[in-house]
Parts: sequence; C-alpha cells; structure tokens
Amino acid sequence: MDELAHAGLGPRPFARWADPEDTAVPSSKVPVWLVRRLGGLTPSPAVPVSDIQVPPSALTPAAADALRSAVGAAHVDTDAPARLAHAGGQSYLDLVRRRTGHEVAVPDAVVSPGSHTEVAAVLSVAGEHELAVVPYGGGTSVVGGVEPVRGTPPGGQPRRAVVTLDLSRMDALVAVDEVSRTATFQPGVTGPRAEALLAPYGLTLGHVPQSFARATLGGYVATRSAGQASTGYGRLDELVVTLRLATPVGEVRAGTGTPNAAGPDLRAMFVGSEGAFGVVTEVTLRVRPAPVERRYEMWVFPSFERGLAAVRAFAQDCPRPPDVVRLSDEEETRTTLATQGAAGRALALFVRARAGTTPAICVLGWEGAAGTTRAARSGVLPVLRAHGAVRIGTRAGQAWRRHRFAGPHQRDVLLDAGALVETVETATDWAKLPRLYDAVGTALATSLAGHGTPPVVFTHVSHVYPTGASLYFTVLARRLPDPADAVVQWAAAKAAASEAIQAAGGTITHHHAVGRAHLPYLEGEIGPVGARALAAVKAALDPAGILNPGVLVEPPRGPSDVRPQE
Amino acid sequence: MDELAHAGLGPRPFARWADPEDTAVPSSKVPVWLVRRLGGLTPSPAVPVSDIQVPPSALTPAAADALRSAVGAAHVDTDAPARLAHAGGQSYLDLVRRRTGHEVAVPDAVVSPGSHTEVAAVLSVAGEHELAVVPYGGGTSVVGGVEPVRGTPPGGQPRRAVVTLDLSRMDALVAVDEVSRTATFQPGVTGPRAEALLAPYGLTLGHVPQSFARATLGGYVATRSAGQASTGYGRLDELVVTLRLATPVGEVRAGTGTPNAAGPDLRAMFVGSEGAFGVVTEVTLRVRPAPVERRYEMWVFPSFERGLAAVRAFAQDCPRPPDVVRLSDEEETRTTLATQGAAGRALALFVRARAGTTPAICVLGWEGAAGTTRAARSGVLPVLRAHGAVRIGTRAGQAWRRHRFAGPHQRDVLLDAGALVETVETATDWAKLPRLYDAVGTALATSLAGHGTPPVVFTHVSHVYPTGASLYFTVLARRLPDPADAVVQWAAAKAAASEAIQAAGGTITHHHAVGRAHLPYLEGEIGPVGARALAAVKAALDPAGILNPGVLVEPPRGPSDVRPQE
Repeated sequence: MDELAHAGLGPRPFARWADPEDTAVPSSKVPVWLVRRLGGLTPSPAVPVSDIQVPPSALTPAAADALRSAVGAAHVDTDAPARLAHAGGQSYLDLVRRRTGHEVAVPDAVVSPGSHTEVAAVLSVAGEHELAVVPYGGGTSVVGGVEPVRGTPPGGQPRRAVVTLDLSRMDALVAVDEVSRTATFQPGVTGPRAEALLAPYGLTLGHVPQSFARATLGGYVATRSAGQASTGYGRLDELVVTLRLATPVGEVRAGTGTPNAAGPDLRAMFVGSEGAFGVVTEVTLRVRPAPVERRYEMWVFPSFERGLAAVRAFAQDCPRPPDVVRLSDEEETRTTLATQGAAGRALALFVRARAGTTPAICVLGWEGAAGTTRAARSGVLPVLRAHGAVRIGTRAGQAWRRHRFAGPHQRDVLLDAGALVETVETATDWAKLPRLYDAVGTALATSLAGHGTPPVVFTHVSHVYPTGASLYFTVLARRLPDPADAVVQWAAAKAAASEAIQAAGGTITHHHAVGRAHLPYLEGEIGPVGARALAAVKAALDPAGILNPGVLVEPPRGPSDVRPQE
Repeated sequence: MDELAHAGLGPRPFARWADPEDTAVPSSKVPVWLVRRLGGLTPSPAVPVSDIQVPPSALTPAAADALRSAVGAAHVDTDAPARLAHAGGQSYLDLVRRRTGHEVAVPDAVVSPGSHTEVAAVLSVAGEHELAVVPYGGGTSVVGGVEPVRGTPPGGQPRRAVVTLDLSRMDALVAVDEVSRTATFQPGVTGPRAEALLAPYGLTLGHVPQSFARATLGGYVATRSAGQASTGYGRLDELVVTLRLATPVGEVRAGTGTPNAAGPDLRAMFVGSEGAFGVVTEVTLRVRPAPVERRYEMWVFPSFERGLAAVRAFAQDCPRPPDVVRLSDEEETRTTLATQGAAGRALALFVRARAGTTPAICVLGWEGAAGTTRAARSGVLPVLRAHGAVRIGTRAGQAWRRHRFAGPHQRDVLLDAGALVETVETATDWAKLPRLYDAVGTALATSLAGHGTPPVVFTHVSHVYPTGASLYFTVLARRLPDPADAVVQWAAAKAAASEAIQAAGGTITHHHAVGRAHLPYLEGEIGPVGARALAAVKAALDPAGILNPGVLVEPPRGPSDVRPQE
C-alpha cells in the first residue's frame, strides 16, 4: 500500500477534511465549467473556530472524577478545543454547520480509554452518573453517527451529559495468526496504520473506503463498511472473523474462527450496530498476502446501460471478477474528462471517436500474487468486447487509483467556493437498478431545482454482486447563502432522494450506515417487527440507554435533544 | 442435477431413513471387518410401529376447531399415524427411540398450512389456545430441532398442547428473477424439488447437504445449513437474498437484494433461528446457471497432515478453490477402501505403493460453465504436487459423487445390525484445527471405551475457508442392547465430545445447528451477553413462547417437559 502514504493526514481542521496547505492532492481549483453550470457561486470561507461559542460542560464534578478514575486524568478532556474537535462527523451538513458556526453540537467531555477494561469502566461510570456515551473512531461518519446527543431512552430519564468516547489511543495490533491468516486489532487503528502494522508480515487488509485516511477499524465494524476494492477483497462484514465488545451489561465475544451453525450469527448482530449495542474493543479480521501485482485500467463503454450489462456479467459469470469495478454514468464521465484539463480534452475526443456520444468510463483493477492478475484480466476481456468496451489504458486507470482518496479534498475546495456538494448512495438487485437510478436522479434534480439551484448529479456503480449493485450519486449545486436555508435546501433534497430510494426498492444505505440521517427510513426498510427486534436487543444490552442515543433504534426527540448545547 | 434422481425418496419409514427395498444405493451389507473391529454386533430389528402406544391428543376441541378454521379441516390431523410420522428428527438417538419404542415423543396434532396467511393464522390460534408450535420441514434434524416439546416460557404458563407445523404443502416456486439471478421459494420445497423447479430456467441452487433428499429450503434457512459443495456454491447463509417470516407479532421481511449497511443484517438474525423467532414462509435465494461441466477426482496425500496443508492452501491461495473439497483422515481412508470390496483392495495396494503407509484420500470436484473447470483445476495442481498428492483418478471421484447421499442408507443397515452410528461435527481456525481433531477423537474413544464399547472414529474435512475448516467425525461402536443403556452410552460420548470441542476452541456445530442437543453448550460459545441478546429477540417476537420451545434460548425443563406424552 505504498502509494497510500499521502492518505495519512495530520489532525483534521475544524471545518474541512484536510489542511488547505495539504499538497498531496492536485486540482485545488474549482473547474470553470462547473461554476458556469451551477449558475454562479459565491465564495464563502469558514468562520474562525474561535468565533464559535462553546457552552460550559454539563458534566458534574463527581462524574468527571469517576471518569478520571476510569481512564486516568490525562484522558478526560472538558476543554473547548477538544470538545469542538469532536463535534459530529463529516457530512456536508456537518461541514456547513462548522463553517458557519450554525447549530454546532459539542460533547460535554472527550474521554479516551486505553483498553477494553477502561471502556467497560467508562460504561459503568456512565450508568452511575446518567451519561450518554458516543463511541468515536475517526469521526468520518457522513450520516450523523457520532453526533453528541444526550438522548432519552424509551421510558427512561434524559441523560445528564454526553461524553464522546475517543478510541484513538487503542491503536495496537494485538495478534497476527499467519496460519489462519487473521489479525486482531484494537478499534482505533486507522486504515493506513492497519496496513503499516501488517506490512512487516507481508499481509494486507485491503479495505479502502474513501475515508481510509481517518476512519478506524472499529468504525468499519460499527458501520458495516464497504471499500473501493470490496468486490475483490470483500465487504467488511465478510472480513470480520471474531469481535469483542464492551456493553453496559458485560463483555461479548462473537464468532469462532470459521462460519458455524450455532444459532443466528451474532457477529451480524454487532457489525452495523453503530455503537448502540456496545463498543468494539477488539476485532479479528481476515487478512491476505499483500499483492505484488497491481493493474488498473480505464475502459469506456458506448453507454452506461451497456456498461451495466457488462459489470453484471463480471459479477455473475466471471470466475474472478476484477477486484475494483467502478462504472461511471455519462454525466460522471463528462465531468471526469472535463476536470482533467488539456489531457482530459484530448481524452474526451478520443473517447467520443471510439465509443460514441454517450460514453461511460469504467475503472477496472486487479491485484494479487505474481502471475495472477494477467489470468484474471483475460477472464473478463470477452465480456468487455461483447459489450462494446474500448480500452483507454493503464495510465488513466493508475491516475484514478492515485487520486481515489481525493474526493474529500476536492469537497473542501468546492465548499470554500460556495457549492453544495454531497453524495447519496443506495443499492438494489439488478432488475430494479435502472429504475432506481432514474428515480433518485430525478428526485434530487427536482428538489434542488425547486430551490432555484438546479444541480449537477452524476453517478457510478462501485460495488457489484451476483444479485445486484450499488449506486453512488454525487450532487453539486449552488449553496443558498444563509446557513439555515442551506440546511433546509439539502435536507429537502435528501428527503426526496430517500423517499425515491424506498419507493424504487433500494436500500436506504449501501455503505454509509444509518446514523441519525437515515433513522427515519430504517423501519421502512426492516419493517416494524425488525425494528422491534433491534429495540429488544438494545433494551437488553443497554437498558439505561447509555450508548449513542438516537441511532439505530431511538428516534431523536426533537432539535433540543439532538443539539444539547442550545 | 440429473444423477440426483434416486435422492427423491418416498415417504420415510418410521424408524429408518429409507425403505429397506430402496435399491438406489448399493452396499447394503455390513462389512465383515467392521463387525470384527467392533467386537461383535447383535442384530436388532426395529419393533413394529403398531406396538408403540400413542397417548390421546391433548388438543382441546375448541383449539382443534380454531386450527381447522385456520388451515382447513383436511389439514389438521390428530390421528396416531400422522403424529407418529412427526416424532422428532433423524439423529441416532431419535432412531434408537423409534426402533425400540422407548420414549417416543409425538405431537398432539399435525397442522399443514398452505400459505403465509395460514401460517400466521396458526400462530394466532396458538396464542389464543396456549399451544406450542414446532415448525417442521423434512424432519431431518439430527440435533432434536423438531422434537414435539410443549415448553414453558420464562415466567409463563406451560403450553397446553404441541402442534407440529408441517410445511410440506408450501412447496411452490414463487418467482424467478433471471436478471438478478435469484429465485423465491416457499419453505417446504425439498432439495430435489428446488432443482427440478429451477431446471427449466437452466438454473441451479447447488446446495447439497447429505439430507438433500428430504430436507427443505425452510429448514436450510432455519439451521444455517452448509452443503457438500458449499466451498464452491456458498453456505446457505451466503445464498439467502431476502426472507419472509411469520412471527407471533407479525410479518418480517429481511434483506434488500444486495448487501447493505442499514444497521445489523437482519437476515442473519433469522437464518439459524431454528423456528424460535418465526416461521420462514418465503425465501429468495441466489441461483446460478446449472453447470454443464463436472469433474470429480480422487487424490491421495502421504498423510492427513499433508492433506490439511494442501486444502488450506486451496482456500487461502487459489483464486478459485475446487467447488467440492473432502479430505479424509487415515482412518476414514482405510475404512473407505475397506468397504469397496475387491476394487477397494486393489486401490488400497495402489495407494500404499504410491502414497506410503498413512494415506489420506481427498475428493475434489469442479463444476461450471463450458471450458471453466479445466482452468480451475489447473490452478490447484501446483498445490497438489507441492504437498505430495498422487492422483487416483476420476472413476473414484465419480463414485464418491454417485454415493454421496448414501450415508443415511448405510446407517439403516448398521442400525439393523446392532451398531451405534452417529456423527459429530465442528470447525475452527486453521491454527487450532490439529488440536481440535485430536481432542475430539480422544474424547469419543475414551468415553465409549469406558462403556466397554471401543469405537471406530474416522474424520473428514469437507468445508474449507480462508481462516479455518470443519471437521466431521463418524463414530461406530457396538450398541448396548438395552434402549436406556444405549441412550446413556451415546449421551455420555456426545457430552465428552462437546466438552472437548469447547475446550479446544471449536464451534459446537459447523452445520447441524443447535436444536435441543447442543443447547447446553450454546452459552459457552456465545457468552451470557450473547445469550441475553437472543433471549431478548425471542421475548420480543414470541412473547408467549409459542415457537419451538426449548431451542436456541430456553433450556428444556426436564424430561417430563421434553417428552410430553409421558
């Protein structure tokens, strides 16, 4: 994972993904064509963080003392900078709030445990002192998964204060089993650190979500993550071998080293439980030999429809599909080529000449042991040819790979320029995919046009399965200047998209998780009996409602509860 | 699946798997060497079923009327033959009881719904009339999963009667989605019927447990089944796309056509729930094109240890492992060759000459589209050579495939001859596998020798994963003549094996499920908090304790509860 060095970023600025001085990612200008298409953007820099009022911590002295006893005085922080640094995640609305200082919620304290025992001790203190605890890995949630919410459990009392449980100190590799090809980590290990820890063993995890630089393995588990190479390396839920969690009622260990038939698979009860049932304190993951060959190529199909047929055939008919499959629709193809400058213009001409007027580019990546990628690639060539694909080459493929973590950096630039920029993702079976694609695009366009800000929406498929695929929509529009208006502008578009997704039979989230953003739609997806089952598990394992209030099972109780500092 | 025609058996005899006249499977004699090794067997035919006393049904007239209203009068049966036909499953102890008439438990009625609505109606009647309901597919449980137990839920009243819910009428193919490669079935479809229903579409499910002839898709789901070809086709839990269940508190639909991140995967809460949370009324499964090529071969390794290293390499290093991998230990190898008559003796000589004195045979199978099995096979040849394997050939491989459902037939013959014959299965990671193998073999041998009946124990690995593998032990011994002694004889050996499994870090069950046989060990595997989570789901979805009492979460309340007719 040598090329990932730049992904290991320093401390995150308050209202951005990366420091503006970070030069690892090129293209820090907003393309002229985009400014033109969005109808004019008003540059809007972030307000200084020092302008943001932080209310006094609601933590009682007794609770603070108990927390200090649990984790050590140095690891309980009630100062404003630490609390501000843990103010929510990295969604567009999170950043709008932080950029404008509008409705920024902060926890009452940041607590950093160093072990499973200390996590359990914090939960115990939280029970005694009526605190809410929000587990926090890299803070990269884009669905409100780490908002500092006090919450009121069903039939219970409102919690008196909210503590963010920062797991970044727990960043050790606990064990490597080279025979069974597994590695056991603490939850605060980031993606780059996991790879660095595995490298001496010649092993890799191969899990590379776009949040790779900052997201943690505990967060991957909690959110049922999928990475850009999950077609080849497997989704996170396929990589979890065993789990250890601390819950308010005791420790859980789930999984036995192989699949089994010992009742329901309890790993699946905790993978995706978003910190509502327990705190992941150890995870054993499947690892494999680090690839020695990597081949990334770009191809172009005559249309998105033809491309869809081809990537479906990869997943259904090829013994070994490419490890990375990323098919752009026509709009994303145009955007990609338009942002590449002169090289892009030349490429666009080439593409049009070879693939027609509605081209759809597709990145394919193969990784593996010496001599294996060639054979794997040969296996999909007949499919590419049968669907009219033309090869652009490895240079464009490698360029995609080099810049694959650039999205959040580019978002910073677009936000500075005054743009609305956010993503929406879903998935469904192949039969319903075309209708879902149309429905979501139309919903986003209609809603934002209604605010006088017609968007640019483009889409790619990045996860293909034998039965279906994901859709990942990027939305760009002119941001309404007033912060409250900007929140409403996006909230309305998001609601329209979410309703369209459910009406078309898509999942409310393929890999971003539920958090607080998607909770209103969860019962629509899993039904009232499914929701009842989750609520029962929550009540059994977290009877006092300590853990991450307002995710997964408890509806937020209104704005004053969701934003405790107001 | 043309060769599977013989697997479609008629009605099952009371105390056997197959009718003695069934000639589809050869070798209906007990091998002389086995009789000699077990120290003499006393033939012991089953008592006539007419000798078995069936107590009157405890169903009240009002409950019977309500059930008749729910499913139609023709589908409620309280007569002795129907109730006897649903007396438990197909474990060795089930058959010992039925063969001797000792402690045969029967339900108070057999109810056969025809639709989801009728299943829901039966659950509603059960709630009103305080009945227990035992869902029943093919009746092939070997862990007491379908025993007619009335049960007493925690804090509740004992149920007044127990009804077996026979799902065999619900045997339709509901829908095929050829684009998404999925098929939706009712739960009572058996393995052979599923294949017959898919054949006109050119599709296959490819799930072939040894119980294939009789087990149902609903049973596969309820028990988290694995089939002989699961290395290639996937375990059942990997094939479930969506599920529909009827629970006492309403309908559940789980799954969205692709993986998602919408909280914990609720499919996994119900797959393996053994009828304790709800009754599967529809299941959508991944299907794929029926293979047009099949290649089965037998190879032999110089030792089981070398074989283990090779099959681990298949799972960890080969882009496409064989679809079927079945490695026998030295004892199973000897047994297999000894039971093949003259051909086996010749083969044994060949094997000894080529592979040494501790040979371990291995069946490898490849299935797939035209031209694909050759490439897949080439991919594993270097591994076979590196581990000293010698090819025996396709004839022995095909013979294994032809006879792969013969086990239960052979068990009938051995039971008639007076043998104890049962299997024990487990799994763990590769690092712990050798110790688990030794521990279980020793525990079984020690326990049975203590009863004066030293066993023959042989083992194979039939499911390989990147992180670990399964172990499947077959145990043969002289059966103690008194039925009560025979029960104690096996119960002690099973307990010894189960304790050895848990001490060595194995799962209590890789693919047979928990049922009532493994329930005492479940909490040891999932821990008290895991058990609490399952109990919470049970209490939420089945508050009155209607469904399959005594599996998964409720301990049996003693013999009088487990055997309601006494």
